[in-house]
Amino acid sequence: MPGPTNLSCLLYGPEKAEFKETPTPKIDDPYDILIRVSYVGVCGSDVHFWTHGGISRKVSEKEPLIMGHEASGVVHEVGRAVTKVAPGDRVAVEPGVPCRRCTICKAGQYNLCRDMKFAADPPRSHGTLTRLFKIPEDFVYKIPDSLSLQEAVLVEPLSVAVHGVRLADLRPGQTVLVQGSGTVGLLTAAVAKAYGARVVVVADINETKLNFAKGFVDCVGFATDIGSMPPDEAARLKKEANLRHGVDVVLECTGVESSIQVGLYACAVGATFVQIGMGKPLHNIPLGAMIEKEVVIKTSFRYGPGDYEIALQLLASGKISVKAMISSSVPFEKATEAWEKTRKGEGIKNLIEGVKD
Amino acid sequence: MPGPTNLSCLLYGPEKAEFKETPTPKIDDPYDILIRVSYVGVCGSDVHFWTHGGISRKVSEKEPLIMGHEASGVVHEVGRAVTKVAPGDRVAVEPGVPCRRCTICKAGQYNLCRDMKFAADPPRSHGTLTRLFKIPEDFVYKIPDSLSLQEAVLVEPLSVAVHGVRLADLRPGQTVLVQGSGTVGLLTAAVAKAYGARVVVVADINETKLNFAKGFVDCVGFATDIGSMPPDEAARLKKEANLRHGVDVVLECTGVESSIQVGLYACAVGATFVQIGMGKPLHNIPLGAMIEKEVVIKTSFRYGPGDYEIALQLLASGKISVKAMISSSVPFEKATEAWEKTRKGEGIKNLIEGVKD
Amino acid sequence: MPGPTNLSCLLYGPEKAEFKETPTPKIDDPYDILIRVSYVGVCGSDVHFWTHGGISRKVSEKEPLIMGHEASGVVHEVGRAVTKVAPGDRVAVEPGVPCRRCTICKAGQYNLCRDMKFAADPPRSHGTLTRLFKIPEDFVYKIPDSLSLQEAVLVEPLSVAVHGVRLADLRPGQTVLVQGSGTVGLLTAAVAKAYGARVVVVADINETKLNFAKGFVDCVGFATDIGSMPPDEAARLKKEANLRHGVDVVLECTGVESSIQVGLYACAVGATFVQIGMGKPLHNIPLGAMIEKEVVIKTSFRYGPGDYEIALQLLASGKISVKAMISSSVPFEKATEAWEKTRKGEGIKNLIEGVKD
Amino acid sequence: MPGPTNLSCLLYGPEKAEFKETPTPKIDDPYDILIRVSYVGVCGSDVHFWTHGGISRKVSEKEPLIMGHEASGVVHEVGRAVTKVAPGDRVAVEPGVPCRRCTICKAGQYNLCRDMKFAADPPRSHGTLTRLFKIPEDFVYKIPDSLSLQEAVLVEPLSVAVHGVRLADLRPGQTVLVQGSGTVGLLTAAVAKAYGARVVVVADINETKLNFAKGFVDCVGFATDIGSMPPDEAARLKKEANLRHGVDVVLECTGVESSIQVGLYACAVGATFVQIGMGKPLHNIPLGAMIEKEVVIKTSFRYGPGDYEIALQLLASGKISVKAMISSSVPFEKATEAWEKTRKGEGIKNLIEGVKD
Repeated sequence: MPGPTNLSCLLYGPEKAEFKETPTPKIDDPYDILIRVSYVGVCGSDVHFWTHGGISRKVSEKEPLIMGHEASGVVHEVGRAVTKVAPGDRVAVEPGVPCRRCTICKAGQYNLCRDMKFAADPPRSHGTLTRLFKIPEDFVYKIPDSLSLQEAVLVEPLSVAVHGVRLADLRPGQTVLVQGSGTVGLLTAAVAKAYGARVVVVADINETKLNFAKGFVDCVGFATDIGSMPPDEAARLKKEANLRHGVDVVLECTGVESSIQVGLYACAVGATFVQIGMGKPLHNIPLGAMIEKEVVIKTSFRYGPGDYEIALQLLASGKISVKAMISSSVPFEKATEAWEKTRKGEGIKNLIEGVKD
Repeated sequence: MPGPTNLSCLLYGPEKAEFKETPTPKIDDPYDILIRVSYVGVCGSDVHFWTHGGISRKVSEKEPLIMGHEASGVVHEVGRAVTKVAPGDRVAVEPGVPCRRCTICKAGQYNLCRDMKFAADPPRSHGTLTRLFKIPEDFVYKIPDSLSLQEAVLVEPLSVAVHGVRLADLRPGQTVLVQGSGTVGLLTAAVAKAYGARVVVVADINETKLNFAKGFVDCVGFATDIGSMPPDEAARLKKEANLRHGVDVVLECTGVESSIQVGLYACAVGATFVQIGMGKPLHNIPLGAMIEKEVVIKTSFRYGPGDYEIALQLLASGKISVKAMISSSVPFEKATEAWEKTRKGEGIKNLIEGVKD
Repeated sequence: MPGPTNLSCLLYGPEKAEFKETPTPKIDDPYDILIRVSYVGVCGSDVHFWTHGGISRKVSEKEPLIMGHEASGVVHEVGRAVTKVAPGDRVAVEPGVPCRRCTICKAGQYNLCRDMKFAADPPRSHGTLTRLFKIPEDFVYKIPDSLSLQEAVLVEPLSVAVHGVRLADLRPGQTVLVQGSGTVGLLTAAVAKAYGARVVVVADINETKLNFAKGFVDCVGFATDIGSMPPDEAARLKKEANLRHGVDVVLECTGVESSIQVGLYACAVGATFVQIGMGKPLHNIPLGAMIEKEVVIKTSFRYGPGDYEIALQLLASGKISVKAMISSSVPFEKATEAWEKTRKGEGIKNLIEGVKD
Repeated sequence: MPGPTNLSCLLYGPEKAEFKETPTPKIDDPYDILIRVSYVGVCGSDVHFWTHGGISRKVSEKEPLIMGHEASGVVHEVGRAVTKVAPGDRVAVEPGVPCRRCTICKAGQYNLCRDMKFAADPPRSHGTLTRLFKIPEDFVYKIPDSLSLQEAVLVEPLSVAVHGVRLADLRPGQTVLVQGSGTVGLLTAAVAKAYGARVVVVADINETKLNFAKGFVDCVGFATDIGSMPPDEAARLKKEANLRHGVDVVLECTGVESSIQVGLYACAVGATFVQIGMGKPLHNIPLGAMIEKEVVIKTSFRYGPGDYEIALQLLASGKISVKAMISSSVPFEKATEAWEKTRKGEGIKNLIEGVKD
């Protein structure tokens, strides 16, 4: 078939996107596959790109970038060594491929690989807002029949949640505070429950979101008062949630300093605090209050070995359902509308449909 | 023998100490022992008490406090159930006795016990600057013949170092940054070496102390420039110490914000940072730089199960020698002179002798 | 009140029990309490005592032993330092009290204490088949209103299950084989599910028990064929349960050699095998098959820090219900009938009622 | 250069080796390199191949195998993507290359990869007894100037030792029993010391080997009496080595049942036993004695992430020297003499020189 055939959505700068044909990817590595992208989700970082043209590294007129990293699709073509999937399989996409060769990859922390190729990472690692997307077979995951391709997009943020909860080494019977009730906060609360948390408190400043959270997962809602001092908020939280000794695990999904402080002040002796949300570079942290409880801060970056498998099992088993989080879906050519919606805080997870044939 | 016989050094307020007879302790619990205190060491917290009358809780005219918590001694009398020591045994003293009954104690973290009775902790937990000191048998440790009673005082800060290094899970081959070259910093560097660190960098702003450090332990000295920005200092440190990827473990013994920041910026992927030194309540922390390396911050409080045993084994085996750290020794009745010396930064570890018969 | 008032059931030798008044225990330690025993459960070791007069150490005419270690009760009297319970509280009893002073206790492994005083352990550690039983306050646990005193007896074997599952470090998504479907096997399977196991296979040679197991917990039943070779049984198990790569965790509750071998051959790469059941002293183990998968064998002894708390939370939350396991209940004076029933394999958990007033 | 140019030593069956030209390997993967093999070591498995024609899988007249897996060499040619080594670099060879793509590899346990290509593994994975050997750049390690190419051969068995000690999670202050004083036993004892073991006991039935061990590493020698019962031997060992409570870590390097039993009976409460040596498929194990101490058995297979790096650091730092272990070196064409020597128990490590130009 001659001529370009691979419609893609490219970003050239802040608020400057174009839909263009890009070269159809060709399988050269025998383990690679091509997928027909079905749905792409919008997350906060997409909005940041749309607004600012990138985060640390930016796109440009000269080096535009195909957007998108939360994706589901259908296998289109497979390399000759591929055994795990076959054309027609419905899959969730893990959008970062590590080098597999460095000491970090070999030691089992591929999410920290310095040579990671992550979808929609400027300048040269293009994303999933394209007709056919190339990826090695071991970074797609077959989805069960019970899961729609729309829902499969949520496996990406669910894996972020799984990664954070696993870092926390959350065990049955523990008490948990999840800060923030956006997509990742909601999913983190659900994963914490699935890991056996005795009590999950979800904290947010937004009452509407808190109410959604209480419907979405069995949790105690805590309406954060940004006018109060963090130690006082922590004391109120412990009192309202009836957790006299504090919480065993904090899963911080906002990246906001006052929220981080509330979480650290709310910690029980020996607690683990996991920073999942990203915020400003520096934060004021109550090290003094942490030290006599030997509180541990871990930082959680994306997802690594096993996270996608666990996320899919939680969905397949019905322990977690993400259907209620899908707010809207726009055709491929209206991708910027999905970014706008998300920028305005409309809906929870807004989707973009793949290119129609 | 009638009348008071137990001379003690009591603090009544800032710079107000008196030497008085206090009641001789009596063994009632069958596992308790009395020791004749031989030497008491001075640490930064003693100076803080001497200067300010306490830290969070203060002494008063009405509730004076017997000072001292780093101590060695000779067993004087033992309760009827005691089997581990006998009168005449030379011992190092672990000066905090937990409740043994709470879930924290039972789970193996007695240093975090909320009912800890720690020596010289106002208002009612008196210290070791006294003739006879009562303690359960399992909180004293027989010292080997090769160790003097003066050196045995250093088992306390050495156990602080051991606790921090164990929390870091330091393993052979790793690269380590120790920040601060005071007593705890020096001992921490020595313990890091004993745990197999490939390279230990010791950072301090004081060149004299750095030079002592380089003689005390096989390390790279790094003279911190407080006029530079922490990310730049971290970059210089990595370059000067030839540690391109950063350090695997940071053991922070200063509690100073700029030093904490340098340590966190210097971290390698997957590094562990342990806060050992105590400083102000809040510190500005580069969470943003930590997150994509999944750096972990642990906080280290005193010493717990096994720390004293390991500290003593490191001394007994000759892997660590603390002799060079002992700077001076004053008679019991001149205890305040030892505090003054330490306040002025004279010497490394200044000792106070026990009451002469 | 003069005269003996504390009826107890004493064993003097194989099949020789007597009901006698024994001295009413007196609180001397301020943390001790007395409980009125409500129910005592019968387990395999009781039957072994009844049949053989003991296990390694035996009872005798000269040194008879008060039997019983699985117990629930109501707080009757408390020492002056007691704060956690009050007279009238309904409690589950943890029947082993460690020394709290040895390095093992202090390191958080009190179940391995060499000076453990465990109920009904000859020659001098008497059990719970008595009217009033003395124990420190921190070894009883208040039960929720939703739990009956009969059910509370099951907290003991449930804690055995919790301890084994925690040792296995079982995490959501893993596949699990539980061997044996007696009391401990059933509870272990239920705990494995509560810890998020994706698949639990329960293996037993007894079809009736397997059928009960399938009603008790969401599991795959595997009818072990003792005529087949263990590697073949393992292969059949993997095939029938559709676990091609083997199981991630084995929880062995039989102590039978062929069952242990099936479990070890069924292990996936990197699997953990936990020996919970006790059998003969030596077993033939396929080390050769383990080594290239780096399979780990852990051995699990009773219960330790946190196990009772977790067991109670699993019951309180409704994640596990033990009601269906209670098969019978006899009056105190008919205790030997309960042992006989259990010896004959009648029922799952047979109870003995406490002394009536 | 026309014609065959790559002399190799091939095994066709038991005691049937031939030296033949084999095709010179060609770099096709851009990360591959060719090395000129300098030295190849002989280990027990080579002798087993020489005697029996293989272990589980065998060589044949139709499918002969190039022998050798312990090797050092000099980089000869590099693929276009190679950055870590350059022609002329002296390297130690890690002779097993995993698939890098399976969940086991990605989770950081590549030594357990089911698709491992290990040198000299029949039928098709040829070994290092050849002139030019092809391998990816990340499975060779530059050696320091202080290390000879002969010594570099020992990095392979040293990495076996490092892997076992790391699995044991050996920490300073612990007491250790190493069973067997062959190459791996000696190196394991040396690594245990380098990891801070307080006492290392080396057990062997061969007094000559024990004497060598005592000269090679600071250890207590224990002459195993195979006429005694294992529990008695364990008791004698604890007494002679003055380890009343038993040993914290056992590193079993013989694979012999009686030795395994002695090790398990000698365990302290909470001890870890690591099986490093391979023996017969089934062994009789004292599970009963393990359970009340919660002893853990781990099995150790080859070496994985980080092991070679640590082994080289231990050599580079001088903490371990392997020079004394090199017993002989024969020219390439006399390889079978080296196998014969090893079969007869002559020397510790016998080497075969690479092909002369």
